[in-house]
Amino acid sequence: MAELSHATRSALSRVGTSTLTGILSRRGLRNMFLQEVWPIRPDVARMVGPAFTMRFIPVREDKTAARGPVQQQAMEECPPGHVLVVDARGDPRAASAGDIYCGRLKARGCAGIVTDGGLRDTEGVFKTGLPAYHRRPSSPPSGIVHQPADLNLPIACGGVAVYPGDIIVGDCDGVVVIPPDIVDAVAEEALATTLYDEFAEEEVARGRSLLGLFPGAGEEAKRDFEAWKKRRSGAS
Amino acid sequence: MAELSHATRSALSRVGTSTLTGILSRRGLRNMFLQEVWPIRPDVARMVGPAFTMRFIPVREDKTAARGPVQQQAMEECPPGHVLVVDARGDPRAASAGDIYCGRLKARGCAGIVTDGGLRDTEGVFKTGLPAYHRRPSSPPSGIVHQPADLNLPIACGGVAVYPGDIIVGDCDGVVVIPPDIVDAVAEEALATTLYDEFAEEEVARGRSLLGLFPGAGEEAKRDFEAWKKRRSGAS
Amino acid sequence: MAELSHATRSALSRVGTSTLTGILSRRGLRNMFLQEVWPIRPDVARMVGPAFTMRFIPVREDKTAARGPVQQQAMEECPPGHVLVVDARGDPRAASAGDIYCGRLKARGCAGIVTDGGLRDTEGVFKTGLPAYHRRPSSPPSGIVHQPADLNLPIACGGVAVYPGDIIVGDCDGVVVIPPDIVDAVAEEALATTLYDEFAEEEVARGRSLLGLFPGAGEEAKRDFEAWKKRRSGAS
Amino acid sequence: MAELSHATRSALSRVGTSTLTGILSRRGLRNMFLQEVWPIRPDVARMVGPAFTMRFIPVREDKTAARGPVQQQAMEECPPGHVLVVDARGDPRAASAGDIYCGRLKARGCAGIVTDGGLRDTEGVFKTGLPAYHRRPSSPPSGIVHQPADLNLPIACGGVAVYPGDIIVGDCDGVVVIPPDIVDAVAEEALATTLYDEFAEEEVARGRSLLGLFPGAGEEAKRDFEAWKKRRSGAS
Amino acid sequence: MAELSHATRSALSRVGTSTLTGILSRRGLRNMFLQEVWPIRPDVARMVGPAFTMRFIPVREDKTAARGPVQQQAMEECPPGHVLVVDARGDPRAASAGDIYCGRLKARGCAGIVTDGGLRDTEGVFKTGLPAYHRRPSSPPSGIVHQPADLNLPIACGGVAVYPGDIIVGDCDGVVVIPPDIVDAVAEEALATTLYDEFAEEEVARGRSLLGLFPGAGEEAKRDFEAWKKRRSGAS
Amino acid sequence: MAELSHATRSALSRVGTSTLTGILSRRGLRNMFLQEVWPIRPDVARMVGPAFTMRFIPVREDKTAARGPVQQQAMEECPPGHVLVVDARGDPRAASAGDIYCGRLKARGCAGIVTDGGLRDTEGVFKTGLPAYHRRPSSPPSGIVHQPADLNLPIACGGVAVYPGDIIVGDCDGVVVIPPDIVDAVAEEALATTLYDEFAEEEVARGRSLLGLFPGAGEEAKRDFEAWKKRRSGAS
Repeated sequence: MAELSHATRSALSRVGTSTLTGILSRRGLRNMFLQEVWPIRPDVARMVGPAFTMRFIPVREDKTAARGPVQQQAMEECPPGHVLVVDARGDPRAASAGDIYCGRLKARGCAGIVTDGGLRDTEGVFKTGLPAYHRRPSSPPSGIVHQPADLNLPIACGGVAVYPGDIIVGDCDGVVVIPPDIVDAVAEEALATTLYDEFAEEEVARGRSLLGLFPGAGEEAKRDFEAWKKRRSGAS
Repeated sequence: MAELSHATRSALSRVGTSTLTGILSRRGLRNMFLQEVWPIRPDVARMVGPAFTMRFIPVREDKTAARGPVQQQAMEECPPGHVLVVDARGDPRAASAGDIYCGRLKARGCAGIVTDGGLRDTEGVFKTGLPAYHRRPSSPPSGIVHQPADLNLPIACGGVAVYPGDIIVGDCDGVVVIPPDIVDAVAEEALATTLYDEFAEEEVARGRSLLGLFPGAGEEAKRDFEAWKKRRSGAS
Repeated sequence: MAELSHATRSALSRVGTSTLTGILSRRGLRNMFLQEVWPIRPDVARMVGPAFTMRFIPVREDKTAARGPVQQQAMEECPPGHVLVVDARGDPRAASAGDIYCGRLKARGCAGIVTDGGLRDTEGVFKTGLPAYHRRPSSPPSGIVHQPADLNLPIACGGVAVYPGDIIVGDCDGVVVIPPDIVDAVAEEALATTLYDEFAEEEVARGRSLLGLFPGAGEEAKRDFEAWKKRRSGAS
Repeated sequence: MAELSHATRSALSRVGTSTLTGILSRRGLRNMFLQEVWPIRPDVARMVGPAFTMRFIPVREDKTAARGPVQQQAMEECPPGHVLVVDARGDPRAASAGDIYCGRLKARGCAGIVTDGGLRDTEGVFKTGLPAYHRRPSSPPSGIVHQPADLNLPIACGGVAVYPGDIIVGDCDGVVVIPPDIVDAVAEEALATTLYDEFAEEEVARGRSLLGLFPGAGEEAKRDFEAWKKRRSGAS
Repeated sequence: MAELSHATRSALSRVGTSTLTGILSRRGLRNMFLQEVWPIRPDVARMVGPAFTMRFIPVREDKTAARGPVQQQAMEECPPGHVLVVDARGDPRAASAGDIYCGRLKARGCAGIVTDGGLRDTEGVFKTGLPAYHRRPSSPPSGIVHQPADLNLPIACGGVAVYPGDIIVGDCDGVVVIPPDIVDAVAEEALATTLYDEFAEEEVARGRSLLGLFPGAGEEAKRDFEAWKKRRSGAS
Repeated sequence: MAELSHATRSALSRVGTSTLTGILSRRGLRNMFLQEVWPIRPDVARMVGPAFTMRFIPVREDKTAARGPVQQQAMEECPPGHVLVVDARGDPRAASAGDIYCGRLKARGCAGIVTDGGLRDTEGVFKTGLPAYHRRPSSPPSGIVHQPADLNLPIACGGVAVYPGDIIVGDCDGVVVIPPDIVDAVAEEALATTLYDEFAEEEVARGRSLLGLFPGAGEEAKRDFEAWKKRRSGAS
């Protein structure tokens, strides 16, 4: 199973998905943000963890025997610290999971759940405290539309490829996927970028023009940023 | 007009649409949850009541004389305790109703309004206190897109057939339709299921595995559930 | 640049987009409400101002040199009191703008931003205090999908034509466009309509029937409205 | 039942749906062309006739007894010379009708079938010779998705209101709806417009500029048109 | 690998997908017809064969090494007589395959190709003679959008679950999936149904009412059908 | 105005859009194929020429005076040999042009018309002989939905950026855009690729494996290709 250093996990929980997609895009990874996947509530907790995947295919009335165990197995086997990512083919007509399944993930120490379908009993899911992302609430039981196919294969979720072990980060705007072999570097760069953005926001709020400041820092902005950082660490 | 016993109305207001769609699905009713219909605000009040229906068709410039009266009539004739369910063909480009119409429904003792189109002045609608469900806010007056056709015929709403007198239940996740001839049994079963779910949630939160617990209760879980119920009633 | 009298701006900030679309519709303007464009949060501040426009076209890898400057220019040149309206072809797969750009608009005294695509870092955008409307949050940087084409031409936004100088009004339900040559009359009529609606809401809440009251006021309702207005001004 | 004079029926079968929608638009009827409804084959025969309507709502597993008879009744009762227009809510996941139903309509002298859902066994339908329009081929039997609700009420089809007795005209581009009270005037105007268009096409093919010719005829074009008409009748 | 008797293959190539979906529906299999998947040309040859599956996921720029081989392998390993069924997540923005890949399948004796994405160079594909079904033509190379993930797992195609070995049948209206364990019975029943439909079509063409004839045969229709079959075999 | 050498024009008319998108993709241009834009008939003539653009925005009832002239001007000013490319925002609810406009383009020596909306009177358009591409037939006059905004600016069409002077190529599968500064090299490479594909198709038809042949030619295939070319030129 993939590991994630404490420092990287901590960094990723303090930077935005906008910062991360920007960095990934500069590295040539252009399709890493899940489309039409949102937190079940705007105030859901931040989510960071390696992906454990489950794949749904459309239900088949002659294959129902296979249904329950795979879903249950996902909830029992997704490793602690990991995020269960579900390929529901973007179909929210029936639920991908509900509050008891999410409660089990939470109890087992998992870091979150993401589906490009829907979650049911979202009030109950929210109460479990598990960070949860989906397309929209969906009360019908999964078996009306979905058949669980397999665990921990590469999947599609929200139009993005998710491989087991990919690092999943969620904030109030959505969910981003980071390849594990570059996650430490991405996290470090994200912290630096976030600091500069904070500086730029303050400058802008004080009336400074974007020219030479954002996007892209000119010589003057770089000097001012260094000074700002110094003042800041002095102040703390 | 359809009647709904006090006990059943009370039970339905305490169980989730996820529980209800699960029970309906086990009875072979697979398409009873309205798709893409949500409460106008996450904290809207619970809604229970028999359906009174209104049907829109697309506007026709040569038929405008017929417009106003049918809509007004719907607001004046939807019986107290009932839910006005509107077939807007899933089209939210113009409103299905607004705050004054909803205020009238509320004043007449109606139980809610549901449309698969949009509602206008949602702040005003929210203030009336009427539980209200729609696809999204829509400010334009209905006549730009819709023509009211008739009242109290079977309609489509959110991709679901709604017959006058069907029992409509709404919570924060959406809206479910229950045939009136089975509503008492469904409500009773829903209470029992909700109780078991509550037990299972507690067990799961304490670290119990899903195996033999959910979905489907094994012998041990059944015994534990009985004991839990006893403790619970003793405690109260 | 378009001007907007203080009285009209003030009136427009107190009336709903539903009232305004109703008045525009009666004047034959049927397509003035942006479809699928919402405030980034339900409690975003009211927005009123003339439009300054920016147009995106799809990204072209051989034209990237042209990207940054136009977007930056929009943020630096949108006049104070104006609303930046962005034609993103309804495509929210990548952001139209983020918190630093929005911060600059706010610092320069602009009245808001509207896009039919997405905004990134919506938490940061919200903190700037700039009224902001979009289709949905979108973290990826704009350059993955969009190429800024030009400023201050007539554009499409949310399926509506927006000409530079058109008056843009946003509330919790969405955004409406008003031609500048009729905006004073529309604002005045909107105040009157809002007053009558307030009267009608109170009457309806007290149990009065819609017949002769709404939509369309009968003789009796007109008299009652006059009396209500008198009582009201006497009371204040 | 609506009647259609021989002259008007004949005229309508010789003019295009583009000409007809143009004329209707000039009369203020802007939404009369069915969206996403096509002939089952490009070389389907022209279709003209008054509408007889059938309405589907979504299937309900507890209402299946009502299914068959209404559909069968539609095929037996649609009057000769009429077009059966089906409201399938734009849903082609299951068929609206198939070759045997269409064969019965043909045998009874009906003028065509239109649905905004799908037709099954389109090869068989084509062989019956009945003009048939739909959204796309759909093999599954209607009962998987649809429940017939009623006959000869106003319906929505392809986003357009269709009232029983409305005149339905189809060509290779699609289907247009004409109110029966203006159909004679519209047909006459369409013949005249078609004649002018023919003249303009010839002129354009010979190299004439559009200025003063199309759209809108200037004085010179009017004179040339008169001369063209004379030459033409002289030639025949 | 799945086998298909000569008799069943022959029967399936003479019956329509509408007949087959009807029979499957009566056996409780309601979702076996691929949605939005069509022959690349209306006059494509009939297709029958067991499924061999390939699954695409969205492209990932850091995984490109894995791309080519899997796709090539599919074309080399799909067994003779089988249909290659491709899960392209319904995304036709880039091709699933082109004329050279299809030519290889044809040369190896495969029975067809089906994708819920697009095919490129459809003229070349048509010339290979391989029955080919897709959503729409798509010229861009697959790697712009798709990453091949694996072969011969259960997949989703056109909203339907396809398991390796399922029997795939295509005609001019689309594609149906039949479980292999019932395919012989389904094929036999389909021949019988097709014969009755032929009889009913003839009767209807001669003016017979649908009552007691279709859907569902009454006593008289059954007797007439027996007589018709006798006349027919006597005539041949 | 852009020029296009005879050799390049001729080459482009003999290679497929699939070959061209492949070459553009290898040069890093990934979004050059128009999505959901097709020839009005499968047997439409090949189209090659530089782009002249027209942009529609949504109709505004207070701006109708501006409508006609811009559209007429487009037909009169699109230079001979050029393709008129129309940005209709992907909206085919009303026509982008019809047979008389297309006839004028043809008479003036233009090379084709492309819109991501619809064309009306497609039978008449086809008769003009002008290569024409659209999303689907659309009979309603453009003014119901569209307002012409301007000519010869960069636009979006089918989700692709089109700059005036870009080279537009259409075949039976759709339309591709080529930057003018690389068009000669792309055309030359396309001829070479097409030749190799022809060789590979023949080899595959004779039973050769894809390994080392396609995609990507191994040493052996390269030698065989050289021999094939020699035999071929010898044979001719």
